[in-house]
Amino acid sequence: MKQLYGSAIIVSGPSGVGKSTLCGKALQALPEIKFSISCTTRNPRGSEQNGVEYFFLSHQEFEKRIANDEFVEHAEVFGNYYGTLKSQLLDPVKNGYDVFLDIDIQGAMQIREACKKDQLLANVCEFIFIVPPSLQILEARLRGRATDSEEQLALRIGKAKHELSFANLYDYIIVNDNLELAAEEMLSLISSFKLSTKRRQWEE
Amino acid sequence: MKQLYGSAIIVSGPSGVGKSTLCGKALQALPEIKFSISCTTRNPRGSEQNGVEYFFLSHQEFEKRIANDEFVEHAEVFGNYYGTLKSQLLDPVKNGYDVFLDIDIQGAMQIREACKKDQLLANVCEFIFIVPPSLQILEARLRGRATDSEEQLALRIGKAKHELSFANLYDYIIVNDNLELAAEEMLSLISSFKLSTKRRQWEE
Repeated sequence: MKQLYGSAIIVSGPSGVGKSTLCGKALQALPEIKFSISCTTRNPRGSEQNGVEYFFLSHQEFEKRIANDEFVEHAEVFGNYYGTLKSQLLDPVKNGYDVFLDIDIQGAMQIREACKKDQLLANVCEFIFIVPPSLQILEARLRGRATDSEEQLALRIGKAKHELSFANLYDYIIVNDNLELAAEEMLSLISSFKLSTKRRQWEE
Repeated sequence: MKQLYGSAIIVSGPSGVGKSTLCGKALQALPEIKFSISCTTRNPRGSEQNGVEYFFLSHQEFEKRIANDEFVEHAEVFGNYYGTLKSQLLDPVKNGYDVFLDIDIQGAMQIREACKKDQLLANVCEFIFIVPPSLQILEARLRGRATDSEEQLALRIGKAKHELSFANLYDYIIVNDNLELAAEEMLSLISSFKLSTKRRQWEE
């Protein structure tokens, strides 16, 4: 048997679904997992450090790397670039490590597209979407935690609905109802990814 | 969320790999799982009962069902037919149950082919191959348990080598080294299958 690659685990979910809590809980059981760090051109805030929260790049550097096709996904938000270097996903998996990427839907869908043109990327990426038990429960959660006006809340709910419509384009869906159970499901998935013939092969 | 289908879990492995012990151990944790029962034209032996070990069909009945395209795989061995009815896989999964099929490689590969022409089948089937830690260890196991002559043993080992060359055509490979671990891996796989968007979909 030969383990050829680790997995690149790409996780999205709508605002209010509890993605960070769920991922945090699951990943503390996996100390070996790597985290993909994004690049941005915005300035560091507070105690943010280069190579920890983000790689902080100049506009010029970021655009050079776009031109070199180094990003597996990127976007411009309020005049700043954000993006994930292909190497952030491929370097760990080539060394047998799993790498975790918490990313918005637009970014995940760009990576999906990139997989069509890059066989290695296609072999290592697995897409997981976190959903709430129901839209009503998500709405209640957003309502409960937010200090938003009704108008802002309606916008958030509309956005969440739109985001949820992408769930079925991912490979797997985890329902975040019971946190313990959802974390176990994520661990089962990550463990099952290792067993796929996309990443391990029998050799005599 | 809507769980549309269960999974059809198709498991193969070479002789001597401990497939039955491993599957038995994993499946005792899943009392709800269904087992696919094959059809055969051979006569029942000892206490074998129709619908338990096999469905015992006449040659004529079997051939009628072949002609009706009711088999997802079938073969003739020493003048008798053996085969799996498509309904044995699809009826349980349509009702949300997982169904388990322990089958030889030839049969599994026929099901793979059938998946190309049947989208529902493709959406529900997952192919698992059990391998030994190494060919040397498999050889030692075959040598240890068999009362075979050297010649028969060489034949068995040759067959196992040939069978192992199909491992990478399955979706997942489980190494049966530590039985407990291998059973856990099988349970993780079966649990992860439920989460696939091939079988569950977000609906508002």
